[in-house]
Amino acid sequence: MRTQVGIVGAGPAGLMLSHLLHRQGISSVVLESRSRDYVEHRVRAGVLEQGSVDLLRATGLGDRLDREGLRHEGIELRFDGESHRVAMTELTGRAITVYGQQEVVKDLIAARLAAGGTILFSAEATRLSGLESPSPVVHYRYEGRDEELHCDFVVGCDGFHGVSRSAVPDGVLHTYERTYPFAWLGVLAAAAPAVDELIYAHHERGFALYSMRSPEISRLYLQVPADEDIADWPDERIWAELRTRLETVPGWSLNEGPILEKAITPLRSFVVEPMQWQRLYLAGDAVHIVPPTGAKGMNLALADVALLGDAFAAWYADGRTDLLDDYSRTALRRVWRAQQFSWWMTSMLHRLNADDPYEAKLQSAALRYLTTSPAYATSLAENYVGLPTV
Amino acid sequence: MRTQVGIVGAGPAGLMLSHLLHRQGISSVVLESRSRDYVEHRVRAGVLEQGSVDLLRATGLGDRLDREGLRHEGIELRFDGESHRVAMTELTGRAITVYGQQEVVKDLIAARLAAGGTILFSAEATRLSGLESPSPVVHYRYEGRDEELHCDFVVGCDGFHGVSRSAVPDGVLHTYERTYPFAWLGVLAAAAPAVDELIYAHHERGFALYSMRSPEISRLYLQVPADEDIADWPDERIWAELRTRLETVPGWSLNEGPILEKAITPLRSFVVEPMQWQRLYLAGDAVHIVPPTGAKGMNLALADVALLGDAFAAWYADGRTDLLDDYSRTALRRVWRAQQFSWWMTSMLHRLNADDPYEAKLQSAALRYLTTSPAYATSLAENYVGLPTV
Repeated sequence: MRTQVGIVGAGPAGLMLSHLLHRQGISSVVLESRSRDYVEHRVRAGVLEQGSVDLLRATGLGDRLDREGLRHEGIELRFDGESHRVAMTELTGRAITVYGQQEVVKDLIAARLAAGGTILFSAEATRLSGLESPSPVVHYRYEGRDEELHCDFVVGCDGFHGVSRSAVPDGVLHTYERTYPFAWLGVLAAAAPAVDELIYAHHERGFALYSMRSPEISRLYLQVPADEDIADWPDERIWAELRTRLETVPGWSLNEGPILEKAITPLRSFVVEPMQWQRLYLAGDAVHIVPPTGAKGMNLALADVALLGDAFAAWYADGRTDLLDDYSRTALRRVWRAQQFSWWMTSMLHRLNADDPYEAKLQSAALRYLTTSPAYATSLAENYVGLPTV
Repeated sequence: MRTQVGIVGAGPAGLMLSHLLHRQGISSVVLESRSRDYVEHRVRAGVLEQGSVDLLRATGLGDRLDREGLRHEGIELRFDGESHRVAMTELTGRAITVYGQQEVVKDLIAARLAAGGTILFSAEATRLSGLESPSPVVHYRYEGRDEELHCDFVVGCDGFHGVSRSAVPDGVLHTYERTYPFAWLGVLAAAAPAVDELIYAHHERGFALYSMRSPEISRLYLQVPADEDIADWPDERIWAELRTRLETVPGWSLNEGPILEKAITPLRSFVVEPMQWQRLYLAGDAVHIVPPTGAKGMNLALADVALLGDAFAAWYADGRTDLLDDYSRTALRRVWRAQQFSWWMTSMLHRLNADDPYEAKLQSAALRYLTTSPAYATSLAENYVGLPTV
């Protein structure tokens, strides 16, 4: 099979890139190792920055998003028995929209298929070759056969564990990373959200996040030790712990309901530089991971491929190489901004080191400062809603 | 000897408190273990917040300060071979004034003595007693004799190593602290400053700070390991290292001159809570230490005693106890704000862990963000010039 741009991975990055390229008259094929059903129901991130919403709308994907997405103009910080709102829209003029990653994926798949696009599900990329030539190849396994996708460029959107990044020779890429001694236990519950906005709770027993996916579905998270076993968390223990960490304000209580899904996810900060080698471009989780505290993962993925969409358009239309050459440098500015923001939110809100009371006091002082300084609150808000340019 | 308020320590805190009390018609005696000459020439901090300048002026101590103090409306951040100015006054409406701590001390001593105040130099407080009674006593050694100062209240302004804090029974005070694996090598040089504003330099070899005390005297600092020996730093090595870390911008060079003084000071974050027990009140370094990166130490000391001055005035004039009772809680809000700011500046600017390249990238991202976000720059500036209330 032959196409102009071969894309590995049908997450938000790969699908959005295919969509953007199609709008520029550039052909692409998306190879996805999982089934369509799997990727359309994989529960992941759920917060879209203003810029991501703008991108989806501008490319014809705003209908269901505007109908079902929940626009939020603030977030709540809960600590020391108090609750404070960060009025994001008042401070920045922008807002976030709660809309699950799997909904973005569904919309993108529908749009690509309606436009005659090619997405091969259950097609596992096994290796890349010829990346130094004008005609690289993605080798993949499909319906029991070894196949080849010949293209002008390969874009690896296949996540942290994907094959694309490993195609780069040793010594080319620099890795920057940090792991955390805690994880998030995430729960999807059939319970109407008790609030309209997200609650970020800093508690001596650990961080908790109250969020939602729809007017009927709550999405809740608890900080747990990194090596925690989900088997040790029966539903009632989860609710009890959520109550302890979140019901710290008089008169406020959770809405509970059947737990539909629960899982523990480790937290990691990870960046690989550069994000390109020869004819291979890397985007999204394949090349950077943030802890979810800042809600930046999906937004970074979309920002990466927005750059690539423009860069390929300039190349195919005018033979321009400047945007492709600048891709990594340009994208990394936003990536590092999001890394620093995500680290900041994570280290301010989680219980870090129980043996260091000074650390806990620093966290309280930072949270208190957010409630008294419009400047500091704006610096949180402008990152959260997404900086337009960096 | 008998007085209303017994003050231990003739640094900026103790002297300013004595000055403020005098203006309210309240008598005090200041006991200082060192000589007048020593405290008037002890080189320490040199940056006054706007609020500290306002306090000095409002209490008749503004003349020499206004003549000799250097008003600064910005600071420079130097990193990654670039230089960026944080326009503090533009962002906050306030400014800082460079005026050495020893000059503040000289002005205060002169004012107290001119007003007939009592400062006993070379008078070493040895212990406190009767703190739970209405008539506590400061025991001190003076001219070879054991003496007693009887008073209504004792205020401990005798620094980290002073005797006052240790008079509080075990179990009452909570200590919060952090040490750092690096120190500052500080140099006083007879060299005209090469710039008008302070330069905070983040360099892969470590932090450097370019500052000044007067139009003829430069004050320079280098980050060095915590266990460094000053004997390993001959003057030429100091200048070479300063050149390496500061001369990172084309066309810019240091002015060099004879080194008048050099010393290595460890960095420490330290808070004791509460700042009061019975009839003992603690202020300044006796109860909190910040690393010098945020230039907050002397300013916190002055803010503490400004609160105490008002509180004693209310007590002696109207028998009000509310301000005295609230002293610790009120002061600690500013103290923790300054702790968090000083930690932030310290951790952003110093070389932390050479084995953690992710950390270095975070630092660059934070510094870069300061140069692109007015909100983030304002949060630095408003802390640096001093928040009016917290």
